[in-house]
Amino acid sequence: MNVDDALPPLQVPAMTVPVPTDVSPEMQRIIAAPRRPAWDVLLKTGEEWRAAANALAAKTLQALPAMRERLHVTVKSSTMDGVRVYVVTPDVLPPEHRDKLLIHVHGGCYVLSPGEAGTPEAILMAGIGHFKVISVDYRMPPEAYFPAALDDAMTVYKAVLKTSDAKNLAVFGTSAGGALVLEMMLQAKQQGLPMPGAIAPGTPMSDVTGTGDTFYTNEMVDNVLVSRDGFCAAATIVYAHGHDLKDPLLSPVYGDMHGFPPAILTTGTRDLLLSNTVRVHRKLRRAGVEAQLEVYEGQSHAQYQFDDRVPETREAFSEITAFFDKHLGTR
Amino acid sequence: MNVDDALPPLQVPAMTVPVPTDVSPEMQRIIAAPRRPAWDVLLKTGEEWRAAANALAAKTLQALPAMRERLHVTVKSSTMDGVRVYVVTPDVLPPEHRDKLLIHVHGGCYVLSPGEAGTPEAILMAGIGHFKVISVDYRMPPEAYFPAALDDAMTVYKAVLKTSDAKNLAVFGTSAGGALVLEMMLQAKQQGLPMPGAIAPGTPMSDVTGTGDTFYTNEMVDNVLVSRDGFCAAATIVYAHGHDLKDPLLSPVYGDMHGFPPAILTTGTRDLLLSNTVRVHRKLRRAGVEAQLEVYEGQSHAQYQFDDRVPETREAFSEITAFFDKHLGTR
Repeated sequence: MNVDDALPPLQVPAMTVPVPTDVSPEMQRIIAAPRRPAWDVLLKTGEEWRAAANALAAKTLQALPAMRERLHVTVKSSTMDGVRVYVVTPDVLPPEHRDKLLIHVHGGCYVLSPGEAGTPEAILMAGIGHFKVISVDYRMPPEAYFPAALDDAMTVYKAVLKTSDAKNLAVFGTSAGGALVLEMMLQAKQQGLPMPGAIAPGTPMSDVTGTGDTFYTNEMVDNVLVSRDGFCAAATIVYAHGHDLKDPLLSPVYGDMHGFPPAILTTGTRDLLLSNTVRVHRKLRRAGVEAQLEVYEGQSHAQYQFDDRVPETREAFSEITAFFDKHLGTR
Repeated sequence: MNVDDALPPLQVPAMTVPVPTDVSPEMQRIIAAPRRPAWDVLLKTGEEWRAAANALAAKTLQALPAMRERLHVTVKSSTMDGVRVYVVTPDVLPPEHRDKLLIHVHGGCYVLSPGEAGTPEAILMAGIGHFKVISVDYRMPPEAYFPAALDDAMTVYKAVLKTSDAKNLAVFGTSAGGALVLEMMLQAKQQGLPMPGAIAPGTPMSDVTGTGDTFYTNEMVDNVLVSRDGFCAAATIVYAHGHDLKDPLLSPVYGDMHGFPPAILTTGTRDLLLSNTVRVHRKLRRAGVEAQLEVYEGQSHAQYQFDDRVPETREAFSEITAFFDKHLGTR
């Protein structure tokens, strides 16, 4: 709430924003892309979202074989205690990473990137960081609704804990995946489970109530999410299925972050969720957690993980790798 | 340069931006303040700027006694090798800070905050962090032009090195002061001087050529600097006095940052210099420097140091203190 209802909003005139010059040519093309098609198509049912997700996933699947080859990783589908997963293994696993294991929770507003379409970020992390990664293919609408995604991620976390020391684990993901990482930590605390050695919540959907200053200042500037009232908000409401959006298991910025493991957060200056990334960063710091923030010039939501051939993608995953190398196994 | 001149700029419609709700009531009032008066008055001479600076300074000076009292510090004017300084001493200096010393370089677009009006940030740091601080009252137009500010700061740094171990020193400042911190490190390297134990360049004017994406996306959003083509750009041109604005001693983002000391950088989501803070952060990281980035929700340029009674001000200077405590004396 505003302290004083009389505090006036800011009126900002229309602006013309050139493509930033101090980023790589490859990133310039991503930044210059038109706003996401159908960013304002607000589907209302799990069935509609699954149809849209399948159409998008078809394109992703076509690109996967070449991506896996470029990054020298192998992907195998499996299940862990009934939950579908993809196990992503780099061709070269350095000795110091042989006892380490990463859990990946993909993004997509809780409704997109089903099946193997959810694996690209896991492939990036495995290929650039040379880690073994388990990517959770959690249930999504219309197969299941809140808290199914979180339940499945927790099932995998608990399964991994049976054979791995928590200090050798990290959990990472972007957007809805970043939120799920934070939600997992809240739930792990509640359930008395050990914390992993580190987490990497990338531009997390940490507040799905619409709070966060860059929901306004970066509206129509971010070419991925585009708007506070766009497709991603609509998708989240479908996933929430009537559940209170302010529940920390949907808006983890409202959770108690004391005792969280060291965290690295990644976002961009044009990201609609810049505020909701820095708010989590501040909340972690206030809770005494070691938390590192990386903000990339000119990038909209999650663009640091759009294409493995972009230098800034390598840079972002190299930062996350260095952070994991610093913190895993050290407790 | 854009990779491709055909990359189109983004057209962003006018927007209405409410005051952010997830900040303190005190910070909400700062964020809700009207745009800075005379932000678009582009003075052209050192004499004109000094008259404007004196008018602004008169208000600052009125507020200083109460501020010093609240923060329990004493300020004494002095000189070091001919350069005017203010020595700011906290009433309570903890034993572990007795051999530590901070050098403060004030902000103000290289033309504002002459004399004691340049001390508020030094008072904040001394009072909140419980450090002894030397604040450099460097020469400004029309008394002197580029590189006078940098020369004076370097004179003080060298004078301090005569009696203090570099590893026990930190250098900090905001805006033009943040840029001067970086310029000092470039020059210290060139002159073969030892690096301090840590630096805190806050929202540095690291690129005065007009490059940086948030010069556009936060134009008219930032209520302090307001515009890429506003008063601060005009003031810098007066200080530069015909010198190339891309010289790393005016735009330090173009300098070689290898070998820099650990750095903590502070900015806000509405800061016109958000990009030029995160670009420095990335440049430091790419150079292998330990660099920590803090971005505060909803804040425009340098607002983390506007008022000692605001919780976010305490938070920002507590973060800087923790960073200095971690790095000073440890090399």
